Amino acid sequence: MKLGTIERPGGSAVVVQAGEHEVAVLPGFSSVDEVVQTDEATWRAAAAEALRSGQRLPSAELSWLPPVVRPGKILCVALNNSANPDRIMSGPDTPAMFVKPSSSLVGHGKPIVTKPSYGRVHPEPELAVVVGTGGADIAEDDALKHVFGYTIINDITSPTMRDTDTFHYRAIHPSTEEPEGVRYVDSWVSYPARYKGSDTFGPLGPWVATAEDIPDPHALRITCSHDGRVVTDDNTANLRFSVAQVIAFASEYLALEPGDVIAMGTALRRSAKGGAVQNLDLAKVGGSVAVEIEGIGVLSNPVECR
Amino acid sequence: MKLGTIERPGGSAVVVQAGEHEVAVLPGFSSVDEVVQTDEATWRAAAAEALRSGQRLPSAELSWLPPVVRPGKILCVALNNSANPDRIMSGPDTPAMFVKPSSSLVGHGKPIVTKPSYGRVHPEPELAVVVGTGGADIAEDDALKHVFGYTIINDITSPTMRDTDTFHYRAIHPSTEEPEGVRYVDSWVSYPARYKGSDTFGPLGPWVATAEDIPDPHALRITCSHDGRVVTDDNTANLRFSVAQVIAFASEYLALEPGDVIAMGTALRRSAKGGAVQNLDLAKVGGSVAVEIEGIGVLSNPVECR
Repeated sequence: MKLGTIERPGGSAVVVQAGEHEVAVLPGFSSVDEVVQTDEATWRAAAAEALRSGQRLPSAELSWLPPVVRPGKILCVALNNSANPDRIMSGPDTPAMFVKPSSSLVGHGKPIVTKPSYGRVHPEPELAVVVGTGGADIAEDDALKHVFGYTIINDITSPTMRDTDTFHYRAIHPSTEEPEGVRYVDSWVSYPARYKGSDTFGPLGPWVATAEDIPDPHALRITCSHDGRVVTDDNTANLRFSVAQVIAFASEYLALEPGDVIAMGTALRRSAKGGAVQNLDLAKVGGSVAVEIEGIGVLSNPVECR
Repeated sequence: MKLGTIERPGGSAVVVQAGEHEVAVLPGFSSVDEVVQTDEATWRAAAAEALRSGQRLPSAELSWLPPVVRPGKILCVALNNSANPDRIMSGPDTPAMFVKPSSSLVGHGKPIVTKPSYGRVHPEPELAVVVGTGGADIAEDDALKHVFGYTIINDITSPTMRDTDTFHYRAIHPSTEEPEGVRYVDSWVSYPARYKGSDTFGPLGPWVATAEDIPDPHALRITCSHDGRVVTDDNTANLRFSVAQVIAFASEYLALEPGDVIAMGTALRRSAKGGAVQNLDLAKVGGSVAVEIEGIGVLSNPVECR
């Protein structure tokens, strides 16, 4: 089953996909956030009733919100594609993660906005997990039971702001010689709030495909296109750490909450015609970016260069 | 006026400080998040009424929650202390920021939990801003009008996880020679979700002092103590970027929402007796950490080493 959140006069609403060109309105829920918080038997009964006799709307006329409008956190896994491991000169053998704020989310069809001060801006097509049941210290074998469903995120990134917000500095460490002393260690650190979290840097949706629709999240074709041209064509089989591994690892540190979104990392493989998402400077080319994942849908957003 | 959020049987409640040892319960609000969303005249009238005739509780017996329980984002400014600028070898001339998830927050008196897999864990005492009116592209001159109040955050950090989650890698940049080509640029990048955002890494509160109580947020003594020993004794005058500058800069990229928390960066100056917060490995010493800011209060948390 596929669920989404739309804007309507008087407030937002949840819709269920009902065929290729229609959706059914799910009464009593204003966002998928609320569905996730509801007992499964209750919302499934409501969805079945909606598909049987609910109000229908044409898909083409919908104004989409992010399906999860205000997740507690959007946890993003970095450098998680096994297609080119030679890029990593040194780094962890565990998933590396950052947080995007919920204020960066936008729905399908809404503009990705760039400003001159952002510098270069590129798309990153990613599979995203919507957490159903929360938890801490989740075992890898139990991890997929915590998945409510899967959606699409375009993890918009400014490499210019990334470079700007990287510091070469002397970190303070305890002295190895005197108990109260300190020593300075030459270090690099980068801070992702701007380059990953600016407004509209998180297109999400339109659909959440519930978990039973995606028996294997690691066998899905994923593409990113710009104005109809395929820029990257990859498969979630190339993710280095699996959904279950990421859930188990992350929840040892950050308790997962219902509605949390986990972005699994970028599909990096280039298309046959060359090109890479990092080559696509949206601030310069404008146009429209589409991310498609097999079995989930197409997330498409126009670019608005201010 | 000072406002906090407490746990009570049957749900949370907002309290107003009513003298040194007592609080008054503010009826109709379950968290400061809700107060921030409410018309000022309405909540101020309710608070005045609560102080006149509301239920009183002894402060010593309260179970505190973070005053803002579920901020949309906790935006943290890094390396913002002017006390030792010589630490920065290269980096931005603008505030560098990361996001802590709301799941990392804990209230005053609640344990900071460390696990063996976290490595070293140290406290970072910081002034925090609670956003009242949200906005994007806020002018520096208008910025303080967007402040609801000020609170205290202990920006708990694991330098061990920071080192682990730092990558030396080849970033993909567009080729300078062929239009579709790429080139690899030797880069460093670090990801802060674990080292800054693990559960209990965000003690917050207990009080939000509303803005009129803090006419100058840059003239406040701030100390951090461990088991009664002063580890750092600084003043918010040493912040490099001011509250107004940070609000103006951040809101150019990330729209601020009511209830957002902005952590202003660590008070770094050492106490006369030596020592530095980075020397305090909470995972090893346990005990209790207190952060005090003049005019706001004392945030104290025991450490629980698992």
